[in-house]
Amino acid sequence: MPRVSQDHLDARRRQILDGARACFARHGYEGATVRRLEEATGLSRGAIFHHFRDKESLFLALAEDEAHRMAEVVARHGLVQVMHDLLSTQDGQAADWLGTRLEVSRRLRTDPEFRARWAERSEELTLATKQRLLRQREAGKLRDDVDVDVLTSFLELVLEGLVSHLAMGLPASGLEPVLDMVEDSVRRHRQGAAAVTGADSL
Amino acid sequence: MPRVSQDHLDARRRQILDGARACFARHGYEGATVRRLEEATGLSRGAIFHHFRDKESLFLALAEDEAHRMAEVVARHGLVQVMHDLLSTQDGQAADWLGTRLEVSRRLRTDPEFRARWAERSEELTLATKQRLLRQREAGKLRDDVDVDVLTSFLELVLEGLVSHLAMGLPASGLEPVLDMVEDSVRRHRQGAAAVTGADSL
Repeated sequence: MPRVSQDHLDARRRQILDGARACFARHGYEGATVRRLEEATGLSRGAIFHHFRDKESLFLALAEDEAHRMAEVVARHGLVQVMHDLLSTQDGQAADWLGTRLEVSRRLRTDPEFRARWAERSEELTLATKQRLLRQREAGKLRDDVDVDVLTSFLELVLEGLVSHLAMGLPASGLEPVLDMVEDSVRRHRQGAAAVTGADSL
Repeated sequence: MPRVSQDHLDARRRQILDGARACFARHGYEGATVRRLEEATGLSRGAIFHHFRDKESLFLALAEDEAHRMAEVVARHGLVQVMHDLLSTQDGQAADWLGTRLEVSRRLRTDPEFRARWAERSEELTLATKQRLLRQREAGKLRDDVDVDVLTSFLELVLEGLVSHLAMGLPASGLEPVLDMVEDSVRRHRQGAAAVTGADSL
């Protein structure tokens, strides 16, 4: 049996994830049957489930991928930037993701084990958000009258609202000034002066 | 044939709505079969569909009921109070409603006709929110550097986030200070002073 290189395994894993993402987006979680996953990835069920234990593990790997990608944006540009990105990329991967998120939400409600596995995967985003806020506070850019945990929860709650709003197919127009207001709400203001402008995003 | 009084019709309609709400909450929208709706309401399918054209109309009547109830709270106490109420009544009708909201969200995404009927029913809440904010602005309690439409969208986005959060069964603990921060974000602040406290809710 020939040795399979790590590069080859990584590429195969990537191929499965990309195909599966499109498949979940088009058919939803329940509708993404094994046959459809085979068609979307161009691989046999044997090959797919060699890399992922089952459909749920495959889906959770996608969730982890997405949380990781968002956490990288948060570290560099803040959670509000993730929201701006969601608004501006209403086609392609972001939109794909949103549709499936709604089915995840349903499942989260009824399946405690799934909720625990999901929470593990989304923790990275919360951590990245909190760490960035702590750095911004040290730099004097953050309001200091509200606990960083509260600011983190606030930003996450707005993100949840935005995800839900877009996933429902509601219009994205008019939300940019709302995000500016959200950004402004966590920022430090000079006493008796207008908001600090031109600073980095939080 | 005896004349049926309006009171009797109203009471019957109420009986159907209350039973249906519990039924949707327990079984979800798809799982609430006609047989289960009969059991939950204690009425025959003939009686149920005498009052409501079909299952969707019955569900939309529940949505309208809920939007109306929320709009009344908004008019008196503001949208943030609706959010506080959601946090504090995690059992009973509020929780019932949340679970089904997630299925509505899925449906909204894929069914434009349903989305239009739903939007019509939830418009009342947006109007009530905006009207209250306009009154608060006249009273000098609202920040005046952000358009009322933006403030309305901001509050609605946070509400959507909260509904999504709670519907997923995520913990409500720690969200009260977040709502206080949301309230504070739309309020007028005296220049160079701390937030106005003790005022009415926005």
